[in-house]
Amino acid sequence: MKMGLTHLDSGGQANMVDVGEKAETQRIAVAEGCIVMRDETLNMILEGNAQKGDVLAAARIAGIMAAKKTHELIPLCHPLLLNKVSVDISADRDLPGFRITAAARVTGKTGVEMEALTAVSVACLTIYDMAKAIDRGMTITGVQLVEKSGGKSGHYRRDE
Amino acid sequence: MKMGLTHLDSGGQANMVDVGEKAETQRIAVAEGCIVMRDETLNMILEGNAQKGDVLAAARIAGIMAAKKTHELIPLCHPLLLNKVSVDISADRDLPGFRITAAARVTGKTGVEMEALTAVSVACLTIYDMAKAIDRGMTITGVQLVEKSGGKSGHYRRDE
Amino acid sequence: MKMGLTHLDSGGQANMVDVGEKAETQRIAVAEGCIVMRDETLNMILEGNAQKGDVLAAARIAGIMAAKKTHELIPLCHPLLLNKVSVDISADRDLPGFRITAAARVTGKTGVEMEALTAVSVACLTIYDMAKAIDRGMTITGVQLVEKSGGKSGHYRRDE
Amino acid sequence: MKMGLTHLDSGGQANMVDVGEKAETQRIAVAEGCIVMRDETLNMILEGNAQKGDVLAAARIAGIMAAKKTHELIPLCHPLLLNKVSVDISADRDLPGFRITAAARVTGKTGVEMEALTAVSVACLTIYDMAKAIDRGMTITGVQLVEKSGGKSGHYRRDE
Amino acid sequence: MKMGLTHLDSGGQANMVDVGEKAETQRIAVAEGCIVMRDETLNMILEGNAQKGDVLAAARIAGIMAAKKTHELIPLCHPLLLNKVSVDISADRDLPGFRITAAARVTGKTGVEMEALTAVSVACLTIYDMAKAIDRGMTITGVQLVEKSGGKSGHYRRDE
Amino acid sequence: MKMGLTHLDSGGQANMVDVGEKAETQRIAVAEGCIVMRDETLNMILEGNAQKGDVLAAARIAGIMAAKKTHELIPLCHPLLLNKVSVDISADRDLPGFRITAAARVTGKTGVEMEALTAVSVACLTIYDMAKAIDRGMTITGVQLVEKSGGKSGHYRRDE
Repeated sequence: MKMGLTHLDSGGQANMVDVGEKAETQRIAVAEGCIVMRDETLNMILEGNAQKGDVLAAARIAGIMAAKKTHELIPLCHPLLLNKVSVDISADRDLPGFRITAAARVTGKTGVEMEALTAVSVACLTIYDMAKAIDRGMTITGVQLVEKSGGKSGHYRRDE
Repeated sequence: MKMGLTHLDSGGQANMVDVGEKAETQRIAVAEGCIVMRDETLNMILEGNAQKGDVLAAARIAGIMAAKKTHELIPLCHPLLLNKVSVDISADRDLPGFRITAAARVTGKTGVEMEALTAVSVACLTIYDMAKAIDRGMTITGVQLVEKSGGKSGHYRRDE
Repeated sequence: MKMGLTHLDSGGQANMVDVGEKAETQRIAVAEGCIVMRDETLNMILEGNAQKGDVLAAARIAGIMAAKKTHELIPLCHPLLLNKVSVDISADRDLPGFRITAAARVTGKTGVEMEALTAVSVACLTIYDMAKAIDRGMTITGVQLVEKSGGKSGHYRRDE
Repeated sequence: MKMGLTHLDSGGQANMVDVGEKAETQRIAVAEGCIVMRDETLNMILEGNAQKGDVLAAARIAGIMAAKKTHELIPLCHPLLLNKVSVDISADRDLPGFRITAAARVTGKTGVEMEALTAVSVACLTIYDMAKAIDRGMTITGVQLVEKSGGKSGHYRRDE
Repeated sequence: MKMGLTHLDSGGQANMVDVGEKAETQRIAVAEGCIVMRDETLNMILEGNAQKGDVLAAARIAGIMAAKKTHELIPLCHPLLLNKVSVDISADRDLPGFRITAAARVTGKTGVEMEALTAVSVACLTIYDMAKAIDRGMTITGVQLVEKSGGKSGHYRRDE
Repeated sequence: MKMGLTHLDSGGQANMVDVGEKAETQRIAVAEGCIVMRDETLNMILEGNAQKGDVLAAARIAGIMAAKKTHELIPLCHPLLLNKVSVDISADRDLPGFRITAAARVTGKTGVEMEALTAVSVACLTIYDMAKAIDRGMTITGVQLVEKSGGKSGHYRRDE
């Protein structure tokens, strides 16, 4: 079998993959990413967080809501009925910055890696937005798939 | 003047910044980012592109459309009337992968860096989506603000 | 079993409930609410309605369309495939104002009370919008769940 | 001048009001509403809140994001460039429940009362969603305009 | 001056036109279209309409709401602050079917012909949806710009 | 059995049809439409296309994305999990202009003709948008259902 870009048809045109014949299975995807910032920025967010938690809560909620919008953002993604999306954010003094992990689950015909990656990206963008007045130089980096299970292609785990 | 997180009010709660008193000025923001992939993946996309261009066209259009949705994705972003969004994608054999640059322009009371960063992120995610069947290990990296002008905070250019 | 807020995980963070293990059942929810206004306002809407019905038709359609958007509005709601949404609006001279009832149905893993409540709320807001030029003092009140069936928690009917 | 339903044209059909001739002024609207619940429910949310604040943070963010979607939800509302939306939520032991206040500001041709009312409604619905597993009998009540300024119709303040 | 496709840049890539330098003027566009159906279908809708008007009310509201979504549907359209959208639908026994006319108005930097055309298209699609159970052969036809004013390109009126 | 407008209930009010009792089957719908333009306009698009393909790529992607939004545009359409949407565009010198065909597939309880028709309409509108600076007189015409299979009503094929 020849491997190829599944979203291009024989004429080279972008099209949705037909998932009509795929089986409904339990599918999980986990993605991660970081936002790197100055030490002072990290401290200021963590102090705000100590009081009310709203910066990280906003980023977590934005990530979850964005996962539900994935098929509106990515042209050839299928709409699907997510069973769950979760977003975890932890401070990392060594970056310095935050590490974001998102997990998406579905019982469906198509994988959820785009939903997990979208949640990570938008959570990072939300942190950027809320801290940009004090640090315009933040960088979003290392947005990638960590693990994926369910579906014909089998279990995938990123090698560290 | 005390610098702080502009999106947290005195009680530490997330809130939109009031831009009612800000002046309407010409504002521009440029952001960049990369998606790194295997050599074979890059080749396969470029070959598809040689024929019909749909992979990169889809990513470019998705990035532009996402910029227009920024205020729906980022909880505390203001809606605004974008004058223009452009997304440029160029292959880089050294990554290997693609470099994405997005520029957003507005005549308004608030900056457009989130729009440019969102366009870059979603263009990268779209390339990931279209090539993920052949390369699940791609990474989105270096998503950051390159330049910003207009508004009270003056001109910003990232130091290389 | 300890009852608790299902949308907070053990760390107190907001997250979607995982519905992956829940059974697909027929689920129905009915919600109600009122908008209270001055007698003259009610009369003016009813006269308009006698002619063309557009005020109440607009409110009914807005409620149905909003029910389909519930998962975009409520951060931790699951997307679902609604089988039906209906919105009924009846004038009540004693309020004076309108009583709105909405019913939502789904064959799915999660209840539809939020869809019914969202339909009622947006139908009320639409009536407010269309009559606000003559009566800014209208109040939306008594928005609540009337009945719910399907799912593990069994049948619920509000006590009058 | 004959007062009437501004959203119905002479044929009784629903239509947007033409705001092309209206002046751009600073406009503010404040709306309020309550969600009434059992004492135990209130306690459980407040305890969760003592830890991480996510229930009320989610409701506040959902309210702000919904205000930005008002013109998508209410058929005849105009799109507008909100300068600011804020949502405040305070516990009230006497209800028992929460009191929600939302303020919206714009420099524009049309008022923002629908944006403030929509923010209140969706913040209430979000609290309902997050606590519904322990209390299906909660009621959203007293959703109304508190104050409005800017525009031709002058200043409005609700009489208590 | 060389005329060309304004949405393609010098490299042939799709991009938004920069409207930053354009003047804010009063702009109006009027579009029209028809949906042609069997005589019986027209009669059945008109009878329903005689009672409650909901088919045509739904189509009119759907058209207005779609006009507000134009920039989300058409990739390179600019978001704009519509002053007014109106949709008129009249039965035409000679088609037989309905004639739809939509007008859009804005004070802005870019024309509103796409908003008027989108309103007509979605109003037609809504009529199709509501009558498709009795007539699958309906055709949407003659969707075109009737008139346009404001902006640098001057007044346009379609020749009959 | 009396045939009637399925979206009107016994009181003549618009409502969603309840699809809860319908069987999940494989459903396909194919729709078509044209956009007619001047010869020069067609040539200019085709030349642009020869280089980079972005005009038709944009129209194809816009059509696919719009199909996924159908239930947000058409008030009484059900949300559904599309298996695939494809949009094909071919130049026709005899029109002169483009012929657009869209196919939608679902495994579900309700047909996908509205999704196919919406894809065709928005693809046509996108071509109009990108060429309107050189030809305001283009007309969208012949938007209709070509074929439909799956569901209780059986196979439908339009007679030529």
